[in-house]
Amino acid sequence: MASNSFGKLFKFTTYGESHGAQIGCVLDGVPPGININEKDIQVDLDKRRPGSSKFVSQRKESDSIKIISGVFEGKTTGTPIALHIINEDQRPKDYENIKNIYRPSHADYTYQMKYGIRDHRGGGRSSARETAMRVAAGAVAKKILAHIMNDKVKIRGAVIQVGPIKVNRNNWDWAEINQNDFFCPDKDCVSKWKTHLEKIRKQGLSCGAIIEIEANNIPVGLGEPIYDKLDSNIASALMSINAVKGVEIGDGFGVVNLTGETNADEIIIDKNNDPKFTSNHAGGILGGISSGQDIISRFVVKPTSSILRPIKTIDTKNKEKEIITKGRHDPCVGIRAVPIGEAMIACVLADHVMQHISISKKMSSKE
Amino acid sequence: MASNSFGKLFKFTTYGESHGAQIGCVLDGVPPGININEKDIQVDLDKRRPGSSKFVSQRKESDSIKIISGVFEGKTTGTPIALHIINEDQRPKDYENIKNIYRPSHADYTYQMKYGIRDHRGGGRSSARETAMRVAAGAVAKKILAHIMNDKVKIRGAVIQVGPIKVNRNNWDWAEINQNDFFCPDKDCVSKWKTHLEKIRKQGLSCGAIIEIEANNIPVGLGEPIYDKLDSNIASALMSINAVKGVEIGDGFGVVNLTGETNADEIIIDKNNDPKFTSNHAGGILGGISSGQDIISRFVVKPTSSILRPIKTIDTKNKEKEIITKGRHDPCVGIRAVPIGEAMIACVLADHVMQHISISKKMSSKE
Amino acid sequence: MASNSFGKLFKFTTYGESHGAQIGCVLDGVPPGININEKDIQVDLDKRRPGSSKFVSQRKESDSIKIISGVFEGKTTGTPIALHIINEDQRPKDYENIKNIYRPSHADYTYQMKYGIRDHRGGGRSSARETAMRVAAGAVAKKILAHIMNDKVKIRGAVIQVGPIKVNRNNWDWAEINQNDFFCPDKDCVSKWKTHLEKIRKQGLSCGAIIEIEANNIPVGLGEPIYDKLDSNIASALMSINAVKGVEIGDGFGVVNLTGETNADEIIIDKNNDPKFTSNHAGGILGGISSGQDIISRFVVKPTSSILRPIKTIDTKNKEKEIITKGRHDPCVGIRAVPIGEAMIACVLADHVMQHISISKKMSSKE
Amino acid sequence: MASNSFGKLFKFTTYGESHGAQIGCVLDGVPPGININEKDIQVDLDKRRPGSSKFVSQRKESDSIKIISGVFEGKTTGTPIALHIINEDQRPKDYENIKNIYRPSHADYTYQMKYGIRDHRGGGRSSARETAMRVAAGAVAKKILAHIMNDKVKIRGAVIQVGPIKVNRNNWDWAEINQNDFFCPDKDCVSKWKTHLEKIRKQGLSCGAIIEIEANNIPVGLGEPIYDKLDSNIASALMSINAVKGVEIGDGFGVVNLTGETNADEIIIDKNNDPKFTSNHAGGILGGISSGQDIISRFVVKPTSSILRPIKTIDTKNKEKEIITKGRHDPCVGIRAVPIGEAMIACVLADHVMQHISISKKMSSKE
Repeated sequence: MASNSFGKLFKFTTYGESHGAQIGCVLDGVPPGININEKDIQVDLDKRRPGSSKFVSQRKESDSIKIISGVFEGKTTGTPIALHIINEDQRPKDYENIKNIYRPSHADYTYQMKYGIRDHRGGGRSSARETAMRVAAGAVAKKILAHIMNDKVKIRGAVIQVGPIKVNRNNWDWAEINQNDFFCPDKDCVSKWKTHLEKIRKQGLSCGAIIEIEANNIPVGLGEPIYDKLDSNIASALMSINAVKGVEIGDGFGVVNLTGETNADEIIIDKNNDPKFTSNHAGGILGGISSGQDIISRFVVKPTSSILRPIKTIDTKNKEKEIITKGRHDPCVGIRAVPIGEAMIACVLADHVMQHISISKKMSSKE
Repeated sequence: MASNSFGKLFKFTTYGESHGAQIGCVLDGVPPGININEKDIQVDLDKRRPGSSKFVSQRKESDSIKIISGVFEGKTTGTPIALHIINEDQRPKDYENIKNIYRPSHADYTYQMKYGIRDHRGGGRSSARETAMRVAAGAVAKKILAHIMNDKVKIRGAVIQVGPIKVNRNNWDWAEINQNDFFCPDKDCVSKWKTHLEKIRKQGLSCGAIIEIEANNIPVGLGEPIYDKLDSNIASALMSINAVKGVEIGDGFGVVNLTGETNADEIIIDKNNDPKFTSNHAGGILGGISSGQDIISRFVVKPTSSILRPIKTIDTKNKEKEIITKGRHDPCVGIRAVPIGEAMIACVLADHVMQHISISKKMSSKE
Repeated sequence: MASNSFGKLFKFTTYGESHGAQIGCVLDGVPPGININEKDIQVDLDKRRPGSSKFVSQRKESDSIKIISGVFEGKTTGTPIALHIINEDQRPKDYENIKNIYRPSHADYTYQMKYGIRDHRGGGRSSARETAMRVAAGAVAKKILAHIMNDKVKIRGAVIQVGPIKVNRNNWDWAEINQNDFFCPDKDCVSKWKTHLEKIRKQGLSCGAIIEIEANNIPVGLGEPIYDKLDSNIASALMSINAVKGVEIGDGFGVVNLTGETNADEIIIDKNNDPKFTSNHAGGILGGISSGQDIISRFVVKPTSSILRPIKTIDTKNKEKEIITKGRHDPCVGIRAVPIGEAMIACVLADHVMQHISISKKMSSKE
Repeated sequence: MASNSFGKLFKFTTYGESHGAQIGCVLDGVPPGININEKDIQVDLDKRRPGSSKFVSQRKESDSIKIISGVFEGKTTGTPIALHIINEDQRPKDYENIKNIYRPSHADYTYQMKYGIRDHRGGGRSSARETAMRVAAGAVAKKILAHIMNDKVKIRGAVIQVGPIKVNRNNWDWAEINQNDFFCPDKDCVSKWKTHLEKIRKQGLSCGAIIEIEANNIPVGLGEPIYDKLDSNIASALMSINAVKGVEIGDGFGVVNLTGETNADEIIIDKNNDPKFTSNHAGGILGGISSGQDIISRFVVKPTSSILRPIKTIDTKNKEKEIITKGRHDPCVGIRAVPIGEAMIACVLADHVMQHISISKKMSSKE
């Protein structure tokens, strides 16, 4: 069923193909009275933009966002906000050779089988180009969070593993993230990743990555059990990103090696007489509801499927073939997934803050 | 917002607390004309029932399912099917001591903060007792799949790790699953887990587990990109199960160590002239759509939070306390999660089969 | 698709057949901390109960409501509230004769054609017995409105026409409503209706009715344009009641005889320096949003389809037949529709109040 | 909550303001493989376009529809279809005078109160300009119906009353509809309406209208009881159109004057041995499900609120004012509502056909 929308109270719908005229989205449910302009959104888009370093796709797109509706004299009006980006560097001809052949590990085969038709140009709708609109929606979601929560909430992400090479968490420095091409929080790790990626790229190969997203200053109480638990919605949001194969909250799969004792997040009373957890194995979510601690999530991105090595496949007439996927590809698509992951977490949180408000607030007699 | 419903075309809504009068659910969207009776559902419930071995909770519940509506003369009528189970072994008094104290790593604190009130008896609504109704819904979902797909689809699960002890996949034997108390597919592993669990239990501790669910004979084409991708919905479904902290599809987090080449699932043409994948790193899903391969998912369950060791916590008046959680608890709740995981996968698939039909079928002139 | 649920933020799902074991509903999204008990709900149910006068069905049902979940120590907990009524006066055998025949103007034919199966006993799921659960849900909705709005909102309804006989609006007295068997606000009209209904009943016939529902003290701002306008949702809610064939807001169809001038609701400033409308042709809704005036809606209920006159019909084998529908039927089902209409308006308003709160409130720094 | 979307399986979301840069919509859930082009949509838009006669608004808009995504090589791909129209005749300055004043019977006051902000230019989002996108969506809905049902379904509408002047149903001729400026099916009525409208316009006044929509060749079985009954969804759809104050199905409010006998639609067996109804008081819907008869709905449109007569109102500072609303307005907006009503019925039916398929079809073994 209709599935190009995300969210419940704060909802966005995306459209557009990789090599179509434009991509866009419509944001519905944005509260009125929020100052917003194109620059606010552009900042986030620029983080995800292709062509920004030699370690990402060389497609040239300015990804200039346009606000079409729903903002009047600089403020949101409560009506739908349409946004779009004109595709500038479309090269449909680059894809003539894959018109009748399925690129393995891409969605070519499954789209063709499901729909009986597909826009083959750069993956059409299944391309990660769609994620640009998620980043745009996420930028608005952050504005909503700031509006409702008085600028408290902060969302930030980092790559913590590229191929087999992990960051050293003892070296973690958030300030480092914007100093390198990899959203890497460990200064010592940067050159290792650079070397690894250059090797991988020269070999015509690709590698995977793990991304961690942290949300700070989250109020206790977000999440709607049983089937819209905060972690359940985060899992859905992150798994919906292209090429993601796993999602974790808090200690994630690591909990299997803990006991009820070592996994327990004890609670004490701090100096301000407020409850305080002494650890955060749970990743800030208990029973599907935020506990007030930082919300920690992680996801893994598979190696880019488009590589310069021959892979066995078939064509649309069931003939066996071999394919080498040329074009402009990221050797590690996981790197550009950081702003996308941040955006999805922002969208989930904005939606849940609004949901929580709806059951916890009253209307004053004046209204 | 209202969140006790799961699914879109095949939808179920659950209600009830751990120590209330009954738990139940309403299934909406079940196609008409399906033969169904209470025994069909009871079989699945019996797999998840407490008290079935010394390695699970000793709460005594027959978990007898009753069909209240929507089935007429043995067949579904297309109207809502209400199901319920009367709680028999309620012991609200067992929980008097936790009325004013938060059990760490449970949802006590977050429910109290979110709602300003909570049914403290056995966790109330946040108890895993709710999952009995998921299993009931899953039993109906399997009937729907059999009805629509001519009995082809098969869904089965296994525990693949208990605490630090993993099964040896070379020993995998599905027939073994029902021969032991742990849904363990590796005969050699059974005694190791038994020993480990007995030790853990004697220590008043608990441990985590990893579960793997496999769905066979799935048609190609299930999944509704972009935001109801099959893997996205599976992630949401599994993460919504109590105590789950991570979800994987196919090779999951393992893909970070692969390259685009080693991760590729090549396609060939088999003897019947049908497309065939030579491997299944993707877990049967490409671009959010089933590829026709087995759908492989995994999830991790944290160690039972109720343990016989003292843990620091606070009471509802912000006083520091220590708590030892007595009662009837599973030393490894992950074990009983197998039928729950199977049920959730069945529900996701039944929903998606109906969704796919809605865009791919026509009405004949007779209708 | 799954369709037995009503509402978005305040949502209820009903189940059960006319002559099944019980009927029930699950309310989801009820805010926590509201005092509620079975008596609160029973009061409303008693207004709609059959057997209360000779002008309604003689089916004997106490319609005793039971609260099964979601209420703890007298207060809602924010978790789903399951309610049910045990059917006491089931007489499935009364319906053996209509097992294989379609009662004209009933849903027998369409249910059989749609689903290929139907529970023929008293109309099964299509019976107006389902509306008992709407009234129960409406009673909770009123509690929500009182909780959020400090007891301001008031919802009340009246029958304004029975067959061809209209009330005289100059005689309107709300106090009169509970003094007669017809929810009639015009004392002079009561005996006319009584005479008419007795005549109709003796003839084995039935007649239609028009009901008007008024909601007072509604805040300005409820309604979510464009596709969840308050009037659009009211139209949907009222039209979903059994036997309803038309819905109006404010002057309704009467506006066709007005001009832009005579239809205009002028605005002035009252003594308290507040805006005040000098008339209410719009029925309290402008652009789909409540204006702060009384919300006025009307709906028409067709004559009871079960009559003691022979009607041509067919059986399930496409043979022509004649049918006389005996049983316990209301000569004018429209009368008992008053509490149902009130309930639906209450549900729509409770849902919209919560929706409006979600976009208009912020969270304080303490949360 | 987010409310700019209509439909469930076939869903569309609209955006844009009357005097913004463009208006548009995103259609989600359109089945793949349907031939569609801009001309197909333009035909319907041209019926609703302003400036087409002296009896409608003189705003000059070509309303040229553009397909932005979701159609590849002339066929739908199953991905979202974005459509838009560039606003050409924007005259925001024409509205400077109403920036700080509320036009009575318009949505100015309620939008300002609800959102605390409004785009005052021509009513902004509350303008009927939004309905252009409904007509575009309806054109696609008709394509879906033709695709699924082999071109059988036909939807057509007529104005049946303008001010106090009704058509004579004995003169009804569908072919007449396109021969006059009023969608009038009664040739003799045309000149009367013309005279009436000219008089009304000269007086600076406006009048209401009643529109009837008929859908032919509808299969039996559409509609999802209890809360997505076909008539309930139609009521919601029609009531959501700007200025609509009432909706009827079949005999509508007229049923109040019938008895169970005169209202009964008897069933016989016709020459082809198929069931046949001898009348259609029900308007083709029984129990919320289509009966296979023509679906008949009606709605009333209030007189245009913008008139050249002075009306009392207030400004945004609660000062009393008088207003005369100049500008380019229809003397009877109801006339242009015909294609809009047709479009909404088409959208409801397309959605319901897909919903019905999802519960009634199976997948063959090949899939």
